[in-house]
Formats: sequence, structure tokens, C-alpha cells
Amino acid sequence: MKKIKLVIVGGGVIGKGFIKILLEKNKFLKNMGLDLEVVALCEIDGSIVCEGGVDLKRVLELSDRGELNKHKQWSSIKSMEVLGQVKADIVLELTPGNIEYGEPGYGHIKKALENGMHVVTSNKPPIALHYRELHELALERKLELRYEAAVGGAIPILNLHRKCLQINEVKSIYGILNGTTNYVLSKMVEDGLSLENALNEAKELGIAEKDPSYDIDGVDTALKVVILANSMLDMNVEFGDIRIQGIRDVTPEAMDLAKKHGYVIKLIGDVRRMEVSPRLIPVDHPLNVSDSLNAVMIDSDISGELTLVGYGAGARETNSSIYSDVIEIAEGI
Amino acid sequence: MKKIKLVIVGGGVIGKGFIKILLEKNKFLKNMGLDLEVVALCEIDGSIVCEGGVDLKRVLELSDRGELNKHKQWSSIKSMEVLGQVKADIVLELTPGNIEYGEPGYGHIKKALENGMHVVTSNKPPIALHYRELHELALERKLELRYEAAVGGAIPILNLHRKCLQINEVKSIYGILNGTTNYVLSKMVEDGLSLENALNEAKELGIAEKDPSYDIDGVDTALKVVILANSMLDMNVEFGDIRIQGIRDVTPEAMDLAKKHGYVIKLIGDVRRMEVSPRLIPVDHPLNVSDSLNAVMIDSDISGELTLVGYGAGARETNSSIYSDVIEIAEGI
Repeated sequence: MKKIKLVIVGGGVIGKGFIKILLEKNKFLKNMGLDLEVVALCEIDGSIVCEGGVDLKRVLELSDRGELNKHKQWSSIKSMEVLGQVKADIVLELTPGNIEYGEPGYGHIKKALENGMHVVTSNKPPIALHYRELHELALERKLELRYEAAVGGAIPILNLHRKCLQINEVKSIYGILNGTTNYVLSKMVEDGLSLENALNEAKELGIAEKDPSYDIDGVDTALKVVILANSMLDMNVEFGDIRIQGIRDVTPEAMDLAKKHGYVIKLIGDVRRMEVSPRLIPVDHPLNVSDSLNAVMIDSDISGELTLVGYGAGARETNSSIYSDVIEIAEGI
Repeated sequence: MKKIKLVIVGGGVIGKGFIKILLEKNKFLKNMGLDLEVVALCEIDGSIVCEGGVDLKRVLELSDRGELNKHKQWSSIKSMEVLGQVKADIVLELTPGNIEYGEPGYGHIKKALENGMHVVTSNKPPIALHYRELHELALERKLELRYEAAVGGAIPILNLHRKCLQINEVKSIYGILNGTTNYVLSKMVEDGLSLENALNEAKELGIAEKDPSYDIDGVDTALKVVILANSMLDMNVEFGDIRIQGIRDVTPEAMDLAKKHGYVIKLIGDVRRMEVSPRLIPVDHPLNVSDSLNAVMIDSDISGELTLVGYGAGARETNSSIYSDVIEIAEGI
């Protein structure tokens, strides 16, 4: 049995999802020869640090009541300090990312790597905004930096390429990389709703945030395009290189017209062309998926076009990708 | 640089596709640290054996002219004899499979494993009909037996599960696993053709074989269902356990009626239910893909539903999966 020590930074829905699955799959993981132990959990206002392993059941109980600071090992020590002190194998950076600077994730990832720990993250902005620097740092320290969950949620894209399409050179990648906009566009087609009404419905269902600008304006998709361009097409792309057009100007009339000619309108991130824009997709095309699904088409020189459809978000679903990265790193330790 | 010696059994379209890609990607593979060398190529009436590496360019030239037996290292030595004598790392079993007994692939795979060589195959019947025996033999000899290409052509299914969805327990797998029937059904919907006319069109285009019974009657899909049940759902299933209904009774009228209600008819292999049958699929469902595409939906406890769409056949496309298996085994040697 291999003991792998983890630090979780960010106890939001994704972090709690990770903990729930860890409790649920403890035996399953042990059958794989892995004993994953959380030695620290960092929140914005303090941390729980316990070298012998944090009591995760208690963490979930307290967190659900918003009383994590009542945990007996809680202290006001900040995440950056924990990452500078603790000795663990893998740091999970699961905070929400700030699009301007990529903080606090950027600082966390750097600190973790500098302190000799592998990093797995679901946080897009730090990877999109500081790709080269973080990658070079990881390479220099001979550490792994993995972020399958940052692009496409539960859909394996980066790992699929690396581990299942080894002989292939990827020619292009494009697809629906944002679930909120796909839900809105799907509702506009199916129920003839205006963008505003479809968006309000999405907000009521918790699919869209109160301020869904980053989704609707294509910024979220553009971040994913940057990550895919750098990591799968070996391009050297920055966020500012992406031409971005969101879906605010898509009208029900345009939708109707498209439908009459056998098309739907989808917000497509096109990695090779470094472009995010609404595009006409034939109704019988594999990228025509509805609801909040994501769909990515990978066109490679040997396999040809391969399309993957799945959940681009969700606490449980996204953790499928986080665990994929964690397990691979753990097995390599 | 790691030298990996290969034996190719079967010089048909898949085997030649493998050789073409090997010539094309030689440098690419060497950059991965792998020097793949073919030391024997076995055909039905003889073999080319060369310990120092078979001249593959010459093989392709002669093979295209149907004159492989003019190769200077050609002899009438049979594949079973070669597999008993030669010392290689990996045997590629790429012959067409016989549905009754799984021969000649079954014998080849057994012989290769008994002689201490790993096996990669695209051949369905031996794996579907002799799953337990071949797996136990490989396990006993501490050898790998891989067959990603046998199910879904270029679509990574088995490797995706094993390498990208590690934390997941798969609940069900179903989908379109036969490109010929999907082409026929798609043409019936799109062009209002009868089954017979659609099938004739498919034959003219080389998508359907002269006698397409195995495809049309669901036998090919059933073989894939058996393989997926045993390897991904850990079931203990034999070919005879599968309830099989092909597409011969699907009429244009049934297609029309389905269409009116927002459905299409697809031949679905349902692994958990051990069933192959034509089913109604909503038009906006990810499994509604046209032409000769394959589409597989994997429903797992953490990732949720994940659908993969791609080419289920094709000399080049199928080799994406063969190389995936070969490279992984080679890296582990």
C-alpha cells in the first residue's frame, strides 16, 4: 500500500466533492494500492492541518453547516503559509480563479511546486495566464502539473491525447467548451426563448451564475482554448491572442433561420484558429449536443475526427478528471 | 532508445496500414524513445522472417502488386511455426477472424503468449469467443493482451476506461458499434431509401462487404458487446448469452414514423443488458450520429455519461488504437 499525502486548497463544491468521493471510494482506491490521505485543507480564512490525516467526515459535517472554523485543528494560518511548510506529495488547487491575474491559484501552484509538491488543479486562469512559467517551473523541479479538470470537466481531453492517442499529431480541436451557453442556446432552439429568458431559466436552475458575463461573452471558453492550444497543439498562445465573440447577439430569428436550413447555432471554441464565436453546426453533426453538455472534436492525423461529449461541470463529474490526474501521479511516485 | 521487436501476423489492409504508419512516424516514435522493428510478417501462404528487421518499403511495394512471395526473405513457413520460433517482444495479430471458432487468431494469440510475447490484436472473434482462457494465459505468463482496435476502431474505449476514468465504476455501456449498419440506417432516414437500396449503395462505396450478413444481422455488434461486457463490466459473458436482433426488419415506414416523433432508429449494442437491437434514439441525443460513424456511451458513477464518436473502421483509423496498445506495452518493457 502506497501512502500519498494530499493538500486540498479550496473547500468549495469541487473540494468537498473530492472529499466525498474519497470517503466513498476509500476501499476502491486501496484495492488499487493507493492510500490517499489529506494532511491539510486550506480555506480563504484559515486552514485545518493534521499530519496524521484530517478527519474528513467531520470536515464535511462542519462545512455543510458553514462552521469549518469550529474544527479542533482549525487555525487562521493562510494557504500560502501552509504550502510553504507542509510536506505532502500532491497539492490540489481547487479555488475559483480570477481572470485578471489568475490569483489565488497562480500563487498556490507556484508555492506548491517550489516546495517540491506535484500539483493537480481544476482552476483555469492560472494555467491559461501563466502556462509557460508554471510548466517550466514544474519541469525544472521534475514535478507534475496536471489540469484535466480545467478543460471540459468530466471529459478526458488532455489525458486522452497523452495516454490513448499517442501516435497521433492533433491537427485541430474545436467544440462546445461552456455548459451555460450551450444550455441557453439549446433552450432558445427548443422552446423559442429569447436569450434573456433562456438565461433567466438557467439562473433559476443554478446552471448560470448571477453574473454570467464570462460565460455569455465567451471568456470562459477562451481560457480553455488557450490551455488546449498550449498543451495539445504545442502553440505559444496568450489570452490576448484569442478573438472572442460571445452569444449576446444571437437572436431567436437567427436561430429559426438556421433551423430552417438544417443548422443550429453553437458557441464554438476553435483552438487552431484561436477563435471563440457562434457558429452554424449541421443538426446531424456530432457537436450538436443539447442541455449543458460539452462536446469536443479532436481531429488527428491517424485517428481522424474523434468527438467526446460529456458533463463540462458538476462537483462530482469534474472530480472524475481530478482523480484521473491524482491517481496517475500517485502511481508514478 | 529502446528497440522493440514486432511480429505482424496478417498483411491485409490493417497490417499494411500499420507498416505505412511505421514508415511515416519512424522519427516521431524515436523521439518517444521507441525503435519499433518488424522481424517477421506472416501471411496465409508464407512469411518473411528477418531478425535484423524486415525491409518494410519493399514489403509494401511487393504487396501492392500481390507479389509478396517475390521478397528475397519470403518462405513458405507458416505463421504458427514462426510464432513458435521467433523471439520478439510484441505480436500483432491482425488477421480476419472466423466467427465460428475465432481461428486463425485464437491459435496465433495462444502460440504468441506461450512463446513469451505480448499480443496486440484488432481481431474480435478470438477475444469474444475465448476471453477467459486467453486472459488467464496472459496473466499466468505475466504478458499483456490488448485489443483496443477490436471494439470501436479508432475510438479509445478500453484504454479510456483504464487510463482516464480510473476512479469510475462503469454502470453501463451502449451505442452504435457497427459502421455498416449505421451507414445503411442513416441513408434510409436521409434519402428515404429501402434497406436493400441503402445496402447496395454501401456495397458500391466499399462500406459494406459483398455478404454483409454479420453486420446487418447484428453479429458483429454482438461480438463487441461480449468483449466490452467481459473487459469493462467484469461480467462473465459468452457469445450465446447475447440476444441479437439485426436491422433486416427496419422499414422506411418505421423510419418515417420515428422521425415524425423526433426519433431515429439505430442498431444499439447494450452491454449491461447483453442485447443487440434496433432502438429509438431522440434526434438530439449524442448517440444520433450519421454516416458510418460509431458512437459509444459510457455511463459511470463519477463522470456520468460520456459519449465518444469516431471512426469504427478504416485501415489508418483503426491503427490509432493498435499503436496505442503497442506504445503502452513498449514503454512498459
